[in-house]
Amino acid sequence: MTDAVHVSLNRKRLIAPGPVEVSPETLLALAQPQMHHRSPEARAKLVEVRGKLSRLLGDPYEAVIVTGSGTAAFEGALVSMVPAGARVVNASAGKFSERWGEMAERLGYAVTKVEKPWGEVLDAQEVAEACRDAYALCITHSETSTGALHDLEAIAAAAKALNPELIIIADCVTSYGVAELRPAAWNVDVIVSGSQKATAAPPGLGYVLFSPQAEARLIRNTPKGFYLDLERELRGQKEGNTPQTPAINLIYALDSSLERLLSVPLEVLWAEKKRQNDALIAAGEALGARAWSVRPSPAVAVLVPPEPLGGKQVAAQLAAMGQRALPGQAPFEDKVFRISALGYADRYDALGIAGILEDAFAALGVPFERGAAVAAAWRAIGA
Amino acid sequence: MTDAVHVSLNRKRLIAPGPVEVSPETLLALAQPQMHHRSPEARAKLVEVRGKLSRLLGDPYEAVIVTGSGTAAFEGALVSMVPAGARVVNASAGKFSERWGEMAERLGYAVTKVEKPWGEVLDAQEVAEACRDAYALCITHSETSTGALHDLEAIAAAAKALNPELIIIADCVTSYGVAELRPAAWNVDVIVSGSQKATAAPPGLGYVLFSPQAEARLIRNTPKGFYLDLERELRGQKEGNTPQTPAINLIYALDSSLERLLSVPLEVLWAEKKRQNDALIAAGEALGARAWSVRPSPAVAVLVPPEPLGGKQVAAQLAAMGQRALPGQAPFEDKVFRISALGYADRYDALGIAGILEDAFAALGVPFERGAAVAAAWRAIGA
Repeated sequence: MTDAVHVSLNRKRLIAPGPVEVSPETLLALAQPQMHHRSPEARAKLVEVRGKLSRLLGDPYEAVIVTGSGTAAFEGALVSMVPAGARVVNASAGKFSERWGEMAERLGYAVTKVEKPWGEVLDAQEVAEACRDAYALCITHSETSTGALHDLEAIAAAAKALNPELIIIADCVTSYGVAELRPAAWNVDVIVSGSQKATAAPPGLGYVLFSPQAEARLIRNTPKGFYLDLERELRGQKEGNTPQTPAINLIYALDSSLERLLSVPLEVLWAEKKRQNDALIAAGEALGARAWSVRPSPAVAVLVPPEPLGGKQVAAQLAAMGQRALPGQAPFEDKVFRISALGYADRYDALGIAGILEDAFAALGVPFERGAAVAAAWRAIGA
Repeated sequence: MTDAVHVSLNRKRLIAPGPVEVSPETLLALAQPQMHHRSPEARAKLVEVRGKLSRLLGDPYEAVIVTGSGTAAFEGALVSMVPAGARVVNASAGKFSERWGEMAERLGYAVTKVEKPWGEVLDAQEVAEACRDAYALCITHSETSTGALHDLEAIAAAAKALNPELIIIADCVTSYGVAELRPAAWNVDVIVSGSQKATAAPPGLGYVLFSPQAEARLIRNTPKGFYLDLERELRGQKEGNTPQTPAINLIYALDSSLERLLSVPLEVLWAEKKRQNDALIAAGEALGARAWSVRPSPAVAVLVPPEPLGGKQVAAQLAAMGQRALPGQAPFEDKVFRISALGYADRYDALGIAGILEDAFAALGVPFERGAAVAAAWRAIGA
């Protein structure tokens, strides 16, 4: 099924957990005549998009849009919320959560680490104990490197029970708009994400959403950053201003993309994205693979391939077929491969990815009954 | 000439010093199917675009592309070149140069300020004296708030004569690709710019170009930033990698735009952009306005309107005609107005802007001989 003619006729797809497929409407929004960010129209658009980001969260948190990656947004949240030298707990069990610890150490915070091996889930009580005397907790909700969805609700409840003043900064880069997330009910103060994930826009924008309580504790004139001073950004953005020139074309693109996501209730969106990812996992299992995490994130299927296959081999086969998936993240490049229906992809795209997986595994010489993965995916979707 | 029918048929233009008009080809490059920044094609593109940025500089400096504004790029240059607490001289005579001093103070550097009133040019010897014991000099080449082009060559020569180890970080946001700039010959170490200026791409990318000597002095693991750690960025970008997800669509757009600029020798580009801006100043003078600076930048015409007109009134009249210019920058909003042929604009666009100015000034009731501004602009262009 992977002969040359077949492959050259295939549509190329991004089936990685970001950057993701972007809709033609959103691409066209990028390509409209260049606008000036200080025009009344562009300022109104910024205010409108900030409101849509809050609606996608489901709670009245104040959104700040950063021109930069999700890492830039996280750094902005950290330096704008946490005073110099304060104690920060870093709960980690994968690449991205480790990054927040590295960042906090680099910036001179007193960092306490609570670690689990990659692939495992964090223990709420253990994290909470470490937070007793801390100013802030940096945590990742959906760990894109391992596919684990940490129990943010339980962790936040346990930590706030021991330390009600704790500020929780949650990397929701791949959970926002995908997984159930109720920050107000769960008592999570700051939510960080980025444009090239659920919101299905090109990369280049990060988002930070602040609870009313977190907003009241923002630091004025943080000594830890100038460009990423989000207290000043938020004050400006409430009026449609950005202290620096923003990637205004990307903001217009994001506006177009958010319309689609907000066309259904959040619960419907979350349930649908979970079904799509469950379909990818079911397809993998039908081919002898297994999810790395026992608590899989709905944003990405991180799959351990059957022996003797390696993750790099699977990702390379998919690439040869024109499909952009990912191997694992260093140092686990070869342990897993990662596929995803994030972004501008629906349940039928998930079904298509199951078909792609069958063809890839067949080309790699894995024995299985043809149709098994597609049938499993289709059942997981709910057919 | 500004009746309703006329105005509604006008083409809307960005005639501000950034964001600027962007070519249809560049907009289409934005709108191509979403690419993944880790693909071999995208990595090769990053390396190619970095090379083009160096060619537009004219010297073999190593380019780093930052997803962020020009301010982000400047902050990256500062924290990646200058050790914590070191002495930094801030030479300022306008909004943007003042910002670098504010940034350096915020980040804990020991800042010595050398100031001139807005609109004036910096004195090379005075700046040099202040640099005797400094680690770095932060300076702005083309001051977009006043329209002054500081004599970077003379200032760098004087400062390096007194302190050969001094690192000069030059904000060339609106001079790079516009004004004569010979950093190797002038002994300027680090050049900072951004996408929405001469390179006529949408906003969202900043550039930093390092001389070989500056590169050798980059700080590893700067304690002053994580996202803006350009030592790590440069190491990655040499191989086509970015530690964080870049605004890859903007990089493809930039690639398309750089092709046009690099189609002529730099001297031809600089001379042409100077003629275009001279034409705008000549048009303004024919209407009773005058350039604020005695040493005008070729990037922007910053004009003091004839009494009793204010800068805000002129900018508002241009806006009512669908033309996006700018008033002055606070606290001089009303002293001047700012027009520009930066970006995807040629000599005939400059001529058109002269016509727009005539219509605006006529609508504002300024007495002048019809055709005078257009004729003056056309003469300045070289007709």
